[in-house]
Amino acid sequence: MKQRIAIDMDEVIADTLKARLERYEIDYGIRLDLEALNGKHIYDVIPGEHRQQVRDVMDEPDFFRHLEVFPYAQEVISELAERYDIFIATAAMEVPFSFTAKYEWLLEHFPFLDAMHFVFCGNKGIIAADYLVDDNPSQLRNFRGKGLLFSSPANKEVTEFTRVNSWLEVKEFFQQQPG
Amino acid sequence: MKQRIAIDMDEVIADTLKARLERYEIDYGIRLDLEALNGKHIYDVIPGEHRQQVRDVMDEPDFFRHLEVFPYAQEVISELAERYDIFIATAAMEVPFSFTAKYEWLLEHFPFLDAMHFVFCGNKGIIAADYLVDDNPSQLRNFRGKGLLFSSPANKEVTEFTRVNSWLEVKEFFQQQPG
Repeated sequence: MKQRIAIDMDEVIADTLKARLERYEIDYGIRLDLEALNGKHIYDVIPGEHRQQVRDVMDEPDFFRHLEVFPYAQEVISELAERYDIFIATAAMEVPFSFTAKYEWLLEHFPFLDAMHFVFCGNKGIIAADYLVDDNPSQLRNFRGKGLLFSSPANKEVTEFTRVNSWLEVKEFFQQQPG
Repeated sequence: MKQRIAIDMDEVIADTLKARLERYEIDYGIRLDLEALNGKHIYDVIPGEHRQQVRDVMDEPDFFRHLEVFPYAQEVISELAERYDIFIATAAMEVPFSFTAKYEWLLEHFPFLDAMHFVFCGNKGIIAADYLVDDNPSQLRNFRGKGLLFSSPANKEVTEFTRVNSWLEVKEFFQQQPG
């Protein structure tokens, strides 16, 4: 039986943060520097009175439909799919208005994946896989297999997981795995 | 750590079949007998030319919103939640227009469950739980833990799993489990 890799969506294959920052600039005329986000979430660097609207953007049914794909995600996942069973595991229950947009985005950008391997969940402790590629340290802590921390500004200080900075580094990691 | 029970939705906590038969009678004026379904799926007992429409009913965004809850499902799951971590695991990827309806139905009828424990998936081999209560033998075969087959007309002939005929029998089963 093939080993199984579960892959997160937001900040791993879909550039949610970039879209949120662009939208913030449109709504408030303020350009946030990615550098300023090191070790921080977007909510930590904006005024308190902007937080609700910045959160509410993610409840717009189309917000998740038009995100950019992370560089090399398609190529590397397509290669990995030859050796591993690939599942997409996204914490969609945190943004329940996003279900349809996330599903359609996956069909568009990852047509080679099996939709029966898409998982919309909350807590990723429920995921039975050998590996999980995720930017969220809390989800990697919930997970029972081997976690790979995909670098994002918010997780820069986290040291407890194997870190991958890009999809090319994910590719390198799995090239070094046995089997 | 508590043991974990994953629970299917359709034909286990939500009476999808009853709603489909009622709808079939409305659309075609034919009342299908539940007895006639023993060992069979709805598609096996209707004329071929009705199949597409009977399938398409499940793509209506509201179809899954108004299903009846199975008798005692709420009471028994509420009790089980004291001893076990409960997850809801539904093969929603087979009916992707149902996401929102299924989510809202769960919030309405099972408000005591944690939405972070809802899982919309396809293949339930991805579910990391100790038990899965499901009416679909294929999903129980995919699953890595202990499967309980919840009786439905289509699975009447299946003998390879522990069978439970009602939520009262589910309750009894777990009363007999250690821990």
